[in-house]
Formats: sequence, C-alpha cells, structure tokens
Amino acid sequence: MAMGFSEADVISVLQKVFATNDSRVMVGIGDDAAVIQGAQQQVITTDMAVQGVHFNLDWSSAFDIGRKITAANIADVMAMGASCEYLVAAVSLTGEEDIAWIENLARGMKSEADQAGAVIVGGDIARSSLITIAMTAVGKTDAPVLRSTAQVEDGIYVSSLPGWSAAGLELLTREISVNSESADKALSEFSSPTLDYNLDFRAAHSMSDISDSLLVQAQQMAEASHACFEFDTQLIAGAAEFAALNELATEINGDVWQWILGGGEDHVLLATGNALPGIKIGKVIAGSGISGVEMKKAPVSWSHFS
Amino acid sequence: MAMGFSEADVISVLQKVFATNDSRVMVGIGDDAAVIQGAQQQVITTDMAVQGVHFNLDWSSAFDIGRKITAANIADVMAMGASCEYLVAAVSLTGEEDIAWIENLARGMKSEADQAGAVIVGGDIARSSLITIAMTAVGKTDAPVLRSTAQVEDGIYVSSLPGWSAAGLELLTREISVNSESADKALSEFSSPTLDYNLDFRAAHSMSDISDSLLVQAQQMAEASHACFEFDTQLIAGAAEFAALNELATEINGDVWQWILGGGEDHVLLATGNALPGIKIGKVIAGSGISGVEMKKAPVSWSHFS
Repeated sequence: MAMGFSEADVISVLQKVFATNDSRVMVGIGDDAAVIQGAQQQVITTDMAVQGVHFNLDWSSAFDIGRKITAANIADVMAMGASCEYLVAAVSLTGEEDIAWIENLARGMKSEADQAGAVIVGGDIARSSLITIAMTAVGKTDAPVLRSTAQVEDGIYVSSLPGWSAAGLELLTREISVNSESADKALSEFSSPTLDYNLDFRAAHSMSDISDSLLVQAQQMAEASHACFEFDTQLIAGAAEFAALNELATEINGDVWQWILGGGEDHVLLATGNALPGIKIGKVIAGSGISGVEMKKAPVSWSHFS
Repeated sequence: MAMGFSEADVISVLQKVFATNDSRVMVGIGDDAAVIQGAQQQVITTDMAVQGVHFNLDWSSAFDIGRKITAANIADVMAMGASCEYLVAAVSLTGEEDIAWIENLARGMKSEADQAGAVIVGGDIARSSLITIAMTAVGKTDAPVLRSTAQVEDGIYVSSLPGWSAAGLELLTREISVNSESADKALSEFSSPTLDYNLDFRAAHSMSDISDSLLVQAQQMAEASHACFEFDTQLIAGAAEFAALNELATEINGDVWQWILGGGEDHVLLATGNALPGIKIGKVIAGSGISGVEMKKAPVSWSHFS
C-alpha cells in the first residue's frame, strides 16, 4: 500500500501538537518513555476505540474522534474522584489517512486534555488495516471514590442528563435529518460527548462513569455496594434538559427513556452522596438491584460484546 | 458474528489471571480505574501490536504473544533506567477466539510481568475485525537514563546479542525447517524475546531499547548525544553467542550482520557508560553518526511505517 507519509513525518507532527512546558513532565515524547512527576496515590485506566465499532469516519471528524476517546479516559479517572494528569495514546493507522487527518486527531486529543488540565506525554503508532486508538490515563487523588461504597440514604446524582449520545446515534443510524437545536446537540454529543471538568464530585460516597449506560452502571454499583438504587422518574423528567430531549424523541418516534437509561456512550458521572452537584435522580435504599424504572428492552451493552 | 463468550466471561477470566495481593495495588481490576501507589519520579510508555503486522496467529501461541508485547513495554521502561511497576492492557478481539486462547494471552502477559516484578492492574476489551493489543507500562526511577546523554569515551554495550529474532523471522518467512538448537532459539526469540530483568544498567550514561534495530537506535542516540557511536565488529564477533548465530546464517544463507545490526524486535538494551554488564561492542567518540559498520541495505524500519 502506498503511504503518503512516513512514521517520522507522523511523529514530527505529533511532537509539535503535543509539545508542552508543563513542569510535571520531565521528559516528553522522543525517548523510550516519558518521565513524569508522580503522586502518592494514583489511578490508571485504559480505553480502546475501534473504527467501525466505536467511531465511524463518515460520522465524526478526526478532531471529534480524538476528543471522544480522550474524554472517555478522563471520565474514568474523574469517576475515581481523581484528577487526570497524564495521557499516552497508541494509534494504528492504515496509511490511507491524510497527515492533516492525523494532526486533527492529535489536536482533538490535546484540546480535551487541555480542558482537563492533563498532558499527553507519549504514544505509539502502528500500521493496521483499520484505525484503533488506545489511550491510557493516569491521575492523582487523595481519596479514591469507588463504585462499592454507596450508603443507604445517599442521594443519587448524574453530572448531566444522559441520553443525548443515544439520540444522536439513532438520528444517524435511521438517517433522519432534523433541523433543530436538540438534534444538533444530540449529534454533537454522539460525536464527542461534553464532560464538565469543573464539576466537583470528590465528596461523593460512590461514583462511576456511565459509558455503558445509566442502568448497567447503577446495577453494578448497587451490587458492589449491597444496596438498592431507587430512581425517581419524576426527578429525571424534571431535569432542565429533559423537555428538549423528550421533544426530539417525540419528533422522531424515539424512546426517551431508552436513551436516558440504556443509551450509553455519554461519559456522564453517576455518583451517590449528599448535596452533590449535577442532577439528583433518586436515592440509595436498603435492598439490592434497581427500582423505580423499568426497561422495555435490555440495553445493548448488557448482552453484546462491544 | 456468533460469539462463544460474552464480555463478562472474558473479564471474569482476566480478573482471575490478573488477581494480585501486591500491596502497591490499592484497587485492582473492576472499578473505573485502578488505584496504585505512585512514586516521585515515574516513567510511562505505551506500545501497540497488531495481528498480521507485529504477530501472526500461525507463528506464535497466545502465551508468547502476551509475553512479547509485555516484554516490549517493560523493555522501554528499563531503557529509561527505571523498574516497571504497573501495566494496563487494551485488547481488541474478533470473537473468533476460544476463551482459552484469551486466557493464555493473559497468562503470557502475567508471566512476563511477574518476572519483572510488575503488576497488571487494568485493561479494556473491544470488538474488532482483528486482534490489536495496546499495553501501557508505568515504572519508577530515581535517575532516568536518557538517549541523549552518551559521553565521549563511554563504552557501548548491549544487554545480549541482537539478531536472533530477525533470524527466526527469516526461518518463518522463507519456510525453512532447520533442526538445530540455534534455529530453535531463533524461532523462540522471534515469538517472544527473552529479556534479562536482572541485568542492572542503571549506571549507564545513556540507554535505549533497540526494538527498531541496533543501528537505527544507535544512530538516534548518537544524534541526540552529539557524538559518534563507533562499533567494533571484532568485539561483536567475539560475543559468546555470535558463533551459533553465524553458523545458522551460513546454514540458511542468511546475513548475520544484517540480523545483528538491522534486525529489530529483539528488545535488547543498548547502553553507554563504564564497565556495564552485557556485551561491549564499541565506544563513543567525538563526531557524529555511526562508524565501524556498514549496512548492505537500510533496515526495514528506516523506510517503512510499521
């Protein structure tokens, strides 16, 4: 396969995009490994996105793809009550990409990392027949917040209303074109979810990212915490953004509750505790499992291998 | 595509294989991220291996593939003068694998990590049309050893004789069957290079992993250090293992110098300094580039995108 660029060309572009003066980074890109200033307690997580499975070149720009995978990793770090400090990215390329596409992918990664105060310190490039992006994030925390430590009487909170990403996916897969702010938001959240890096959930008793869907992760947290997560659909329906999402669902004959409860890919934080920021959607009670909501069908990620 | 296993089945196997009581790991696999004990100065590196490019299911067992990608990451950490502490692995699977194949992949990773005193603390599994493995390694160091700090008068050392992996690749690609200890060693080093985790190169002035080949990395180190790497082919030919490798080359009409200088994929450490362990193969002199050896053709990795 003819290549329009060499590995050296790619590395040269990436070194420029990821250049940093951050004092935590002692050695950046260019040696066998980066040298970084550590912390006493750290969190580490990794996430892989595959072309055609997690992103689609026809639906998302390189910049948005870069943002999305970076946000997914940072969300996992935040879901531990930690702040993300460092990221590395391993990317396979087919050789059919423009160098500009690769640069925009890197710019999307850097843009999202910048917003979270994190630095991209290294990576690897491989050749493949499809694009695969694996990122690893390292963060620091004084007190990690686990999934397993929800307490009876805790309020249940989400950092924002989930479901927009699922709505965007439905617009794309059903090839529906809707000219509205809600539809634009749904498409934009699908391509690259917005995560509010200023929301402070470190006081939460328990927390998880809900990239697999609100119900899947609530179920996991309830099980791990030996408690029941009782949702209040009135509270969810009272959320500021619910009306717009519900209107979009009505317009395209979609299921707003399926989107919110079973959608996934939103990178919203689900937390329990007292007086947390975000939207209160229920409370933790004695018992097990989930109550207060019913799914018409199991979320996709319950049964599939994705 | 029909799947013989669910994501939950895979995670369950991986949690068993990667179970650890290591006191540095505060939260292991199962939450949004692992929580680990950090250190003041850390190194971080990532490496991606793609089916059909970096490994071939017909040539290598799952165990060896797991070992090889893990060794590659650990070698990069060691090449910074650091000891590897933690690893995370992101793996895409096609769904055509046996669960036993996946377990053996994980066992290979764990076996290599164990040898180096490192712990696999997390990962991600994705679906794809081909297997891609991305690992990230984090290590600690008191004094990182860079590529750029070779000093004139330093001896040049390798941790072991490179070239065995290239010899193994040649046996496989030319479909030559040779019944000898040397051929067995070449095949085994190709499938999963042996790295001596007890060799202590922390006193080196400069160091690099030579996964891209001895000459490519020596050239990079010479350039970064503003010095000339002068190789002594007599010293290389005097190495204990040279005779066996040379004999194999003669037997199959291969080029022993091409294997040693341009082969790559050996995960041998190249270091400069005084009285280091391993094999002395030259010295650093004033000037630039490389002297003392000549390549008949450029190593593959000089021109290609791999």
